[in-house]
Amino acid sequence: MDINKIGHHISSHYNVELEDIRNSVLKMGGIVERQIELAALSFTSNDMEMAEQVIQQDDYVNRLEKQIDQACTEILAKRQPAAFDLRLLLSVIRTINDLERIGDEATKIAEMAIHLSDTEGKTRSEEYYEIQHLAELVMKMLRGALDAFARLNVESAVSITAQDAMVDREYGSIIRQMVARMMEDPRNVRRTLDVLWTARALERIGDHACNICEHVIYMVKGEDVRHMSREELERKIQG
Amino acid sequence: MDINKIGHHISSHYNVELEDIRNSVLKMGGIVERQIELAALSFTSNDMEMAEQVIQQDDYVNRLEKQIDQACTEILAKRQPAAFDLRLLLSVIRTINDLERIGDEATKIAEMAIHLSDTEGKTRSEEYYEIQHLAELVMKMLRGALDAFARLNVESAVSITAQDAMVDREYGSIIRQMVARMMEDPRNVRRTLDVLWTARALERIGDHACNICEHVIYMVKGEDVRHMSREELERKIQG
Repeated sequence: MDINKIGHHISSHYNVELEDIRNSVLKMGGIVERQIELAALSFTSNDMEMAEQVIQQDDYVNRLEKQIDQACTEILAKRQPAAFDLRLLLSVIRTINDLERIGDEATKIAEMAIHLSDTEGKTRSEEYYEIQHLAELVMKMLRGALDAFARLNVESAVSITAQDAMVDREYGSIIRQMVARMMEDPRNVRRTLDVLWTARALERIGDHACNICEHVIYMVKGEDVRHMSREELERKIQG
Repeated sequence: MDINKIGHHISSHYNVELEDIRNSVLKMGGIVERQIELAALSFTSNDMEMAEQVIQQDDYVNRLEKQIDQACTEILAKRQPAAFDLRLLLSVIRTINDLERIGDEATKIAEMAIHLSDTEGKTRSEEYYEIQHLAELVMKMLRGALDAFARLNVESAVSITAQDAMVDREYGSIIRQMVARMMEDPRNVRRTLDVLWTARALERIGDHACNICEHVIYMVKGEDVRHMSREELERKIQG
């Protein structure tokens, strides 16, 4: 797919509108990426200022979703796009919804960090390295998904969805450890649940990054690949 | 809002297309409603046949989402709708996404029921009445949301979103009980976590029902009310 396909319209204003929308998505993506980074860091390093920053950003992310949505709807009404342009706009509408939900998950993690800090004070234990690792995995996925969106790169979108299996494995391993810890000592239950919810939020972020990859594939190929198995997906893309 | 607003087109075929899409959404909604009902029942009554039925339906629900999505995209490309029709199609695209996610949550509940049945055999305890109650609350919300969608009824859409606070309260109370139970006896941890994930899935279903109400409000009023406080929402709707 040639990235220059965008901006082929006779109306130069239309070209600018589409380009603006793509740039806004990438901007929103960058903010959400930073939210995950800060949320994970606030969790592992017990930095409450960071946690507050994440929570405050949530409003801004919500507003961005509404603004971009509105811009897409206006173009749909005014320009009546078809083919690639229509798919671009529909993909953007879906992508920003996933980004907004990622922002929600980051906010939950920050809230969990604050809750943990209230209940256990300033100590942080080793299990948080695993949370940090999971956070790095899903941040890498999101970065890749946004990059695939920017470059209209189907191949890398497909390869990112493959990384979700690794996230699921890491998540499963954290859950097993947390269950063992709760069974060892009931006093661990409350704080371990916070770790567990955090792991869950990160796993969900990985799912949303996969969704964004599926939107990229739809935009470029016109193929709705949701709910496909890996094999089906690869067959579709090569075919 | 007059429900007869749909079907005002000179092209009778266009009218039929829009009506078909609305009916498909309601059909999909009915299936998903039944999925929640069966999932909750399989959980509380330990009926594994029911649980399997819910899991099997998931594929069908996914397919329905894709089909309706495709139909919406075709109309967008072919008819180039504006105003109410455009909002109708965008609301449908969002609504079926929420329905699909509700189907996913119902499937998770059914899987949890199977997992519980494997680990604890045929006994079911009292805590499940609370799960049943929470399930009834969110089913009522979803039914109301679909009804508001069918009748384009903004007032009832607004009143359903208000019910979410009750769901959150019930959910919070279940979580507190479960934490206490795990702390009482570590042998409870594994199965109590299943109850906890189930409560979480039901709470998420309530959120999706609220989302559908917001889509209805957008469709009828052209007002994007996501992330609004209750007061703002009521002001917007009355205004």
